[in-house]
Amino acid sequence: MPLDKTWYTEEWAGQGSAISLKIKDKVHDEKSPYQRIEIYETEAFGTLMTLDGLVMVTDRDNFVYHEMMSHPALFTHPDPKRVLIIGGGDCGTLHEVLKHETVEQAEQVELDERVTRVAEKFFPELCESNHDPRAKLHFTDGIKWVADAKPDTYDVIIIDSTDPVGPAAGLFSETFYRNCLRALRAQGIVVGQSESPLFHAELIRSVQKSFKAAGFRDVGTLFFPQCTYPSGWWSATMAGKDGSIAEFRNQAAAAKSFATRYYNHDIHVASRARPEFLR
Amino acid sequence: MPLDKTWYTEEWAGQGSAISLKIKDKVHDEKSPYQRIEIYETEAFGTLMTLDGLVMVTDRDNFVYHEMMSHPALFTHPDPKRVLIIGGGDCGTLHEVLKHETVEQAEQVELDERVTRVAEKFFPELCESNHDPRAKLHFTDGIKWVADAKPDTYDVIIIDSTDPVGPAAGLFSETFYRNCLRALRAQGIVVGQSESPLFHAELIRSVQKSFKAAGFRDVGTLFFPQCTYPSGWWSATMAGKDGSIAEFRNQAAAAKSFATRYYNHDIHVASRARPEFLR
Repeated sequence: MPLDKTWYTEEWAGQGSAISLKIKDKVHDEKSPYQRIEIYETEAFGTLMTLDGLVMVTDRDNFVYHEMMSHPALFTHPDPKRVLIIGGGDCGTLHEVLKHETVEQAEQVELDERVTRVAEKFFPELCESNHDPRAKLHFTDGIKWVADAKPDTYDVIIIDSTDPVGPAAGLFSETFYRNCLRALRAQGIVVGQSESPLFHAELIRSVQKSFKAAGFRDVGTLFFPQCTYPSGWWSATMAGKDGSIAEFRNQAAAAKSFATRYYNHDIHVASRARPEFLR
Repeated sequence: MPLDKTWYTEEWAGQGSAISLKIKDKVHDEKSPYQRIEIYETEAFGTLMTLDGLVMVTDRDNFVYHEMMSHPALFTHPDPKRVLIIGGGDCGTLHEVLKHETVEQAEQVELDERVTRVAEKFFPELCESNHDPRAKLHFTDGIKWVADAKPDTYDVIIIDSTDPVGPAAGLFSETFYRNCLRALRAQGIVVGQSESPLFHAELIRSVQKSFKAAGFRDVGTLFFPQCTYPSGWWSATMAGKDGSIAEFRNQAAAAKSFATRYYNHDIHVASRARPEFLR
């Protein structure tokens, strides 16, 4: 059955497959200096934001991604106080990070201010913590930010980027990871989104290798479902500056003081299990 | 971007969403006494079989589903010798089951013989074990089969069904589960596909309740990615006749004598982790 124009469709590049969401209305469309930002009201996924035609976030399923980009890394660090988010313009990761009481400052460095301004209007729940006194929003190049960062500044760096093409490609490079290593304090943790295990297994292996080559002591990938991202299955790759990332603050995670919808202690452990084809 | 007629599209019923696969050719189309069976060659997912327009199996991603329908149940049972598969007409589950050396007989009870005959032609890899002397293929009603089964016959029953509508609806009922309980021997295990955690959380809860109400001692759900099924995230619910299903033959699973592509010991454990919204 061909779909008509009441559907938004994202073709998954090079994968001969596509996801479509039924649209009630398009409520915003602009070209920022960096990209086209569109907002739709969908029939069953709430509000949808696309960047250059690719799904960035929907009301219905963003919780999995944002929780998995934040809580495993923050519960792996023994005492995360200063957090840096690269990208993450929809502010959903920032919102999750600030649920942690140990965090004293969370900086978000997003290239495109318009993404955040549009998210504030259309995704108010994700932006609830933007005015938390611990939050600092910067709108500039994250690659340069990390290159210029003082050594030993951050406890956790979260690379909440778009796909590794265009301006985001540099966020998947060994050079960038080496700068992250330098910007991290002792016991620092970095985590970056690393695409689909089904579609991009080679990229995941390459990200793991680049973290190792950059000098991180331990590297591992987390796997989780993400309905509206290519293949419906996603990953984040985490690395420890000078220690193992296998251990985490189990008891704190099991007794966490805040609500989540996907993440919990058992999910944290489970997300580390590697499918046989990736061993 | 609307997709043209070179795409196969499945609209995910009631979910305002759809998946599409780019088609090279349609190579088979028939109406069996039960349903329409279509086979396509896709651009990136190999061969695709649809039943009444719904994705049943693709070359590229069926391994996750078939492995997760088989190996957790068979490694949870202490010594599975007799296995019954209800549905499973593409024979992929049968193929996985027969990888277990303990299995002396595996019976597959599929309503529609044409599904199996078409699979034999277009999915030869899934049907490799159809002529294993331990395999017995029956083409009849699985609900009646289990109702008529002698008590204490099977060690493992696998309900590899289509969605809970039409003829498959009865495979999600307490009455059917009670008949499974009776047909199972001591220490018996049943597992049934239980749809998408994101789309059908209520169904999963209802399946769990029905297994309990039917008299199973322990019930739990397994979660796994499945790209071409609705939401890209799927589940199977497993129940133990008279014991816990938390324990399994860890060492046998860790040292399994056969190849898999998704399943392994750690994935088995991980698949049991419940997302927070399902706790």
